[in-house]
Amino acid sequence: MKALEVKIKKEGKVFPGEILKIDNFLNHQIDTRFLDEIGQEFRRLFDKEVTKILTIEASGIAIATATARYYDFCPVLFAKKIAAANMSDAVYSAELFSYTRKQTFYASVAKEYLNENDKVLIIDDFLANGEALNALVSLCKQAGAEIVGCGIVVEKGYQPGGRKIREMGIDVQSLAIVSSMTDDSIEFADQPL
Amino acid sequence: MKALEVKIKKEGKVFPGEILKIDNFLNHQIDTRFLDEIGQEFRRLFDKEVTKILTIEASGIAIATATARYYDFCPVLFAKKIAAANMSDAVYSAELFSYTRKQTFYASVAKEYLNENDKVLIIDDFLANGEALNALVSLCKQAGAEIVGCGIVVEKGYQPGGRKIREMGIDVQSLAIVSSMTDDSIEFADQPL
Repeated sequence: MKALEVKIKKEGKVFPGEILKIDNFLNHQIDTRFLDEIGQEFRRLFDKEVTKILTIEASGIAIATATARYYDFCPVLFAKKIAAANMSDAVYSAELFSYTRKQTFYASVAKEYLNENDKVLIIDDFLANGEALNALVSLCKQAGAEIVGCGIVVEKGYQPGGRKIREMGIDVQSLAIVSSMTDDSIEFADQPL
Repeated sequence: MKALEVKIKKEGKVFPGEILKIDNFLNHQIDTRFLDEIGQEFRRLFDKEVTKILTIEASGIAIATATARYYDFCPVLFAKKIAAANMSDAVYSAELFSYTRKQTFYASVAKEYLNENDKVLIIDDFLANGEALNALVSLCKQAGAEIVGCGIVVEKGYQPGGRKIREMGIDVQSLAIVSSMTDDSIEFADQPL
């Protein structure tokens, strides 16, 4: 998505440790008109039946609800990030390590909202090591739900997350794939690295 | 909003301690078609110029972005909930006590995204003791921004939050005001209690 690459180059900020922040239009302040374009683009990329969109709090929520509009207002389900696994029979949970916060979390969803009849589009803002996306995939598998694909706004192509999930046979589409990043420049790739 | 009252009666769950959960359509799974109606209703209630919508992660994000659509896609800014106050010059922060989690948090926004030229509509899902809303009001005041009003999805009318914020002279509009709640029934009021 060319408009996204332009926007990242213009408004993104790079911090030490190859941390890319797009707080100006997605992760803190949200450009809601552009968000709508992101939703339309995911609809174009995944031109299939989707009964539910799954994401994880917090930044994924805006993107998922904007996308749901273009799937006839299908429900969005957002996994909660919890500090300890909830072993209740009422939830599915999957471990994930946050490299940003250097801490293990669990992604958790109530079983009643995800089942084997669901055709799920997974949506998230960033894909780097793939911890969050892997957890969301696990939640779908635990529920026996079909994974239509994974739509990502920004993938760090040189980190292993995208490859790991694609090797499971899952269709991962990223709107922008960063191929390299320095304090002064961000480069993009047209295809997964 | 009659449709909301009906939905809460039908799909809401009451837990011990007067905890109302609407996880079926707002706080975990999101009914995105209904979310759009909520956005339209806030637009009808606050028929004024709004340059920015301010909310707090996580559940407020979906409501805020759905509402922004009806203010010509104005930007949404979501305050981060952080465990300790960030004393950096780059942020405004305000303390809030979470009665649900029995813990003090800070709502934080980057100064660059909120200033004295902003006409802010504050949006949140629940209003009970008013801790979160009070923190969002404080962030606007610190920034010198004008507060157009506060749009709340569900207010627990018998708790003090609504009164406290209205006594500041701020226009608080709640789509549903719960007047009483037991395990078996939920009653609503047409006006703030």
